[in-house]
Amino acid sequence: MSLDPDIAARLKRGPDGLVPAIVQQYDSGEVLMLAWMDDEALHRTLTTGRATYWSRSRQEYWVKGNTSGHVQHVKAVALDCDGDTVLLKVDQVGAACHTGDRTCFDADALLP
Amino acid sequence: MSLDPDIAARLKRGPDGLVPAIVQQYDSGEVLMLAWMDDEALHRTLTTGRATYWSRSRQEYWVKGNTSGHVQHVKAVALDCDGDTVLLKVDQVGAACHTGDRTCFDADALLP
Repeated sequence: MSLDPDIAARLKRGPDGLVPAIVQQYDSGEVLMLAWMDDEALHRTLTTGRATYWSRSRQEYWVKGNTSGHVQHVKAVALDCDGDTVLLKVDQVGAACHTGDRTCFDADALLP
Repeated sequence: MSLDPDIAARLKRGPDGLVPAIVQQYDSGEVLMLAWMDDEALHRTLTTGRATYWSRSRQEYWVKGNTSGHVQHVKAVALDCDGDTVLLKVDQVGAACHTGDRTCFDADALLP
């Protein structure tokens, strides 16, 4: 099993083989976090319905919520016009952020 | 003029000196696009109220809308928990995408 060749052909990966994935709560529109995917992580996300990323710090696949319980159920996935960014719409169980905040952008406002 | 040292100290840049910036329409919550910023682009975005990026393809600063008229008026800026991603809330004039679509994620749905 691997990523659909039609999708793989459209994907423009960075030098590290990864694309950024923007993760958004599907109904409220909140931007929850940004994570990274390689082809296999995108494949697993599309086929399992559970958001799966590549952890750059741990260098391993990471099924969001497997340890915390803060699962992301995948509702929609889209590629951008350049094929170099993924937008994931999910239903987030609990907090998206490891700090316990609902989103990873709650704690450090630069403006206003 | 350069980026506030307190902010610069919290910013975790990639090997290319850039951080991804997620751009969201401030009222509807639509995710419009993803772009890239270095310290100077973030500084200009925070101080001018106009979204300013670093263009990786053209290797130059890029004030969104300067040629297209599709300006982004900055409403809010936040850093994520790791300091490696920026979330920009803007008021987008016209289309965010160079294709004429409202967002860069309108044309290529992978799921459903």
